[in-house]
Amino acid sequence: MPRRIVIIGAHAAGVDAAAAARKTDRTAEIALMTKQKRAGYSPCGIPYVIGGHIPSFDDLVVFPPSYYRMMKLDLRLETTATNINTEAKTVEIRDRTGKEAALPYDSLIVTTGAYPFVPPIKGKDKKGVYVARTIEDGQRIDKALKTAKSAVVIGAGVIGLETAAAFVERGVKTTVAELLPYCLPAMLDQDMANVVQGMLEEKGLRLIVGHGADEFLGDEKVNAVSVAGEEIPADLAVLGVGVRANVELARNAGIALGETKAIRVNHRMETNVKDVYAAGDCVESINMITKRPTLSQLGTTAVKQAKVAGTNAAGGYAAFSGVLGSAVTKLFDVEIGVTGLNEFFAGRVGLQTIAGTITSKTKADYYPGALPIRIKLVVEKESRRIIGGQFVGGEAVTQRVNALSFAIQKHMTIEELAKADTCYAPPVNETWEPMVLAAEMAIRKL
Amino acid sequence: MPRRIVIIGAHAAGVDAAAAARKTDRTAEIALMTKQKRAGYSPCGIPYVIGGHIPSFDDLVVFPPSYYRMMKLDLRLETTATNINTEAKTVEIRDRTGKEAALPYDSLIVTTGAYPFVPPIKGKDKKGVYVARTIEDGQRIDKALKTAKSAVVIGAGVIGLETAAAFVERGVKTTVAELLPYCLPAMLDQDMANVVQGMLEEKGLRLIVGHGADEFLGDEKVNAVSVAGEEIPADLAVLGVGVRANVELARNAGIALGETKAIRVNHRMETNVKDVYAAGDCVESINMITKRPTLSQLGTTAVKQAKVAGTNAAGGYAAFSGVLGSAVTKLFDVEIGVTGLNEFFAGRVGLQTIAGTITSKTKADYYPGALPIRIKLVVEKESRRIIGGQFVGGEAVTQRVNALSFAIQKHMTIEELAKADTCYAPPVNETWEPMVLAAEMAIRKL
Repeated sequence: MPRRIVIIGAHAAGVDAAAAARKTDRTAEIALMTKQKRAGYSPCGIPYVIGGHIPSFDDLVVFPPSYYRMMKLDLRLETTATNINTEAKTVEIRDRTGKEAALPYDSLIVTTGAYPFVPPIKGKDKKGVYVARTIEDGQRIDKALKTAKSAVVIGAGVIGLETAAAFVERGVKTTVAELLPYCLPAMLDQDMANVVQGMLEEKGLRLIVGHGADEFLGDEKVNAVSVAGEEIPADLAVLGVGVRANVELARNAGIALGETKAIRVNHRMETNVKDVYAAGDCVESINMITKRPTLSQLGTTAVKQAKVAGTNAAGGYAAFSGVLGSAVTKLFDVEIGVTGLNEFFAGRVGLQTIAGTITSKTKADYYPGALPIRIKLVVEKESRRIIGGQFVGGEAVTQRVNALSFAIQKHMTIEELAKADTCYAPPVNETWEPMVLAAEMAIRKL
Repeated sequence: MPRRIVIIGAHAAGVDAAAAARKTDRTAEIALMTKQKRAGYSPCGIPYVIGGHIPSFDDLVVFPPSYYRMMKLDLRLETTATNINTEAKTVEIRDRTGKEAALPYDSLIVTTGAYPFVPPIKGKDKKGVYVARTIEDGQRIDKALKTAKSAVVIGAGVIGLETAAAFVERGVKTTVAELLPYCLPAMLDQDMANVVQGMLEEKGLRLIVGHGADEFLGDEKVNAVSVAGEEIPADLAVLGVGVRANVELARNAGIALGETKAIRVNHRMETNVKDVYAAGDCVESINMITKRPTLSQLGTTAVKQAKVAGTNAAGGYAAFSGVLGSAVTKLFDVEIGVTGLNEFFAGRVGLQTIAGTITSKTKADYYPGALPIRIKLVVEKESRRIIGGQFVGGEAVTQRVNALSFAIQKHMTIEELAKADTCYAPPVNETWEPMVLAAEMAIRKL
C-alpha cells in the first residue's frame, strides 16, 4: 500500500514539503490543503505588487495548477483542517461547501504558518484598517490605495516598511509608527537603524519611532491615527507589527510547543508526536550561534525546513542545520541586510562583543555610479569569531549577507576575514572589499 | 636615527606598502619610485576609460600628490632603480635627467610588478601594434581608436577581453584570437568559457579560439592580422597574452626566484635576503588549496601583500595567508567570476573532482528584470570540500565569488553549502540561492 502523506498548508513550506516528499517516494499519496483560494504563492512579493514593481498579484503564484498535477499532489483549496487525531492518524477537514471528511495519514506535516498579530489598539476593527499577509489582504489594500491620499503603517519591521515604501511609490503620503525606539528592530542595531531612517525620510516616508498607534480614529471607517498625541490623517492603515505562529490545531492535538510558543521539532523536523513533522513559520528553530530556540519565520527558512520535513515524512533522511536569521530587503532603492546576531541580541544572550563599522563604496572610487555601503560587523570578544553583520545601502547586499553567513557558519575569525581572498574589478567593487575594511576596524578595537 | 625604507615601484603594491609602513612607523623615512610619470593609479581601469565608462585616464590616479605629502612619502617619478646592492644596503637610481644616486635602506621593498609578454610573432614591431599595461599604453590605444574601423586583440584573457569589449563599445569591429581552445583559460573551464563566448559573440565581438596570430601584416603600420590563414583587417592590434614578473633587478641582486620565475617570499613577504621584501605582480604566491607556488598577479593580491610587506619592513608583524585566485570582470554587461581551482587546474595537480553546474535567476521568477546566472562548483571528491567556483552572467557575481571564497577558505563541504543559511527578497534573489542549487547538483553526482 502506498504511503499516505498529509500536509496541512500549501504555501512556501507546504508545497516544498510536498515536492521533497514526492522526490523521496514516487508512489506515495500526498495531499495538501489550504484555506485560501490560491496555493503556492509568494507572500513576500505582495508589497512589490502594491508598489507597482510586479504587474499583478497573479504573478506571485510560483506553483501553477499544472505543477500539482505533474507532481501528482492532491491539492485541496479552500479546505480547512479542523482537527488532528494522532491516535487514529487522521486529519479532519472541511471543504468550501461545508463537507467534512477524515484523511488518514502515515506521515503528517504541519505547515500552518503564522498569522498577523493584531494588537489591542482602540478602533482596530474599523473599516480601512488592514493587515498584509495574504494575496486577498494585498488586493484589499491595493483597492483602498486607488482613492487614498494618506496612510499610516503601524510597525517598522520588514513587512511594515516594505508596505510603507510601496505606498510612497504609489504617491500616498505615508507615516510609519514604531513602538520601539528604532526601525527594523529585529534586524538592526540602533546605530544602523538610524542610517536607514535617514534614507527613508529622504525618500519621503515619515517615521515616528518610540510610539505606537494609540487609536484608529473615524466613524465606521478610519480617517486618522492617533500617535503620541498627534492625529495623523489616514485614508487607510496597515498593521505590520509581526506575526504569531499558527499553532492552535497542533496544540489541540497534543503536539508540543517550545519556549517561543511555536511548534518544537528535532533536527529532522519531527514533533514530539511520532510521524508528525512541522516546518515553516509555525515551528521554532535553533539559532546556530546561541544554540537557543528562536523564531525565524523567513521564506528561506520555511523552504529549507520543508525540504527536510518532506524528505523524512516520505521515509528518507535529512537534517536541518539551524538558522542564522540571514535576511534582506529592498526599500525604494535601498538594500538592507543582516545575518547572525546584532549587538543588542548578542548582549541579551550574554555575549561580549565588539563591532567594526565602516562606510565604503561599491565600485572603484573613480568608476561612475559607485554607491555608499555601510557595514557593521559584530565579533565575539574572546573567540574573535564573527557572529553577525548588518548592511545598509550600496548594492549586492544579499550576497554580502550570504558571504558573511558562510563565514559565521564556518567559525571565521575577524582576523581571517581581514585577510580573506576577495575579488575586484573597477565596475563591480573597490580593491579592498568593504567587509574586509570593516573587519580591520573591528580588529583595532580588540 | 629614523628607519630608512626604500620601495622600488609606486603603483598598487608600492603605494600600499608605503602606506602600511607609514602606519607602522610614524618616523621612518620612506622613499618610493616609478619609471612612469604617474604613480598610484589603477591599471585595471584602463579598458573602462577606453570603453568610455570612465571620463579620463587622469581619473585612474587613486593617490593624488597630496596623499604622498600627507603620508610624508618621498615619491620619485620618472626614476629608475638600476641596481640593488644587498651588501651595502643601497638602491642605485637614475632620474629623468640622467642623474644617478644611491639610496641607503634599512628595509627594501621590491614592487617591480610585471610587464606584458610580447610573443615572437612576425611583424610585432610594426606601428599600430600595442600592449595595454600603463596609462601611456592606454592613451596610445585611445588615440589610435579615434580613426580605427577594425581591430584585432591577441589573447582572450581578462585584459584581452576587457580591451576588446571596450573596442566594440567604441564602435570598432573587433576580433580576438586566442591560441588556447577557449577564452579566459586561466579562469574558466571550457564548458563555462563556451557560455561566455556565446554571450560575447551576441554583443558583436568575434572570437577565434585555438589559433593565435601568425603575423601582423602591413607595411610600416599594421593593416591586418593573419590568423589561421585568414587575413583579418586591423587598423590596430593589441597584445593581451599575459604578463611576466619583472624580476631582472632582483635576480641581479641575488634575490631568489621561485619555480614560477617570480620572486620567492615567505609568509612575511620577505625574500631570501634579509630586510628585502617583495609584493605584487613580481612575487609568487602560495595557493591556499594546493599549497603550491602560483602566480596571482591580481590587484587585490598586490595590495594585501603590500600591506604585509610594508608592515614588516617598518618593524611590525604581519603574515600573508596565500591566495585563492578570486577574480571578477565585467565584459559589456556580463559579469564573470572565479575563485579557487577550476576542474582543469584541479586535475593538473592530481585532485579528483566532481562538479555541480546550474543556471538559475538573480531575482524571484516573477520579479521583472531577473537575469540568468550560470554557476559551476568544483568539489574534491574524497573530502567533499568545495575547492572552486565559476560564475557567468547575472548580477552580484563579485559577492558570490567572495562568499564562495570564504567557504573554501574555511573548508566548507558541499553538504554544508547545500544547507547554508542564505537570504532572499523578491527584488534581489530567488528563494533558493543559486549557489545552493549548484551544491545540490554536485551532491547528486557524489
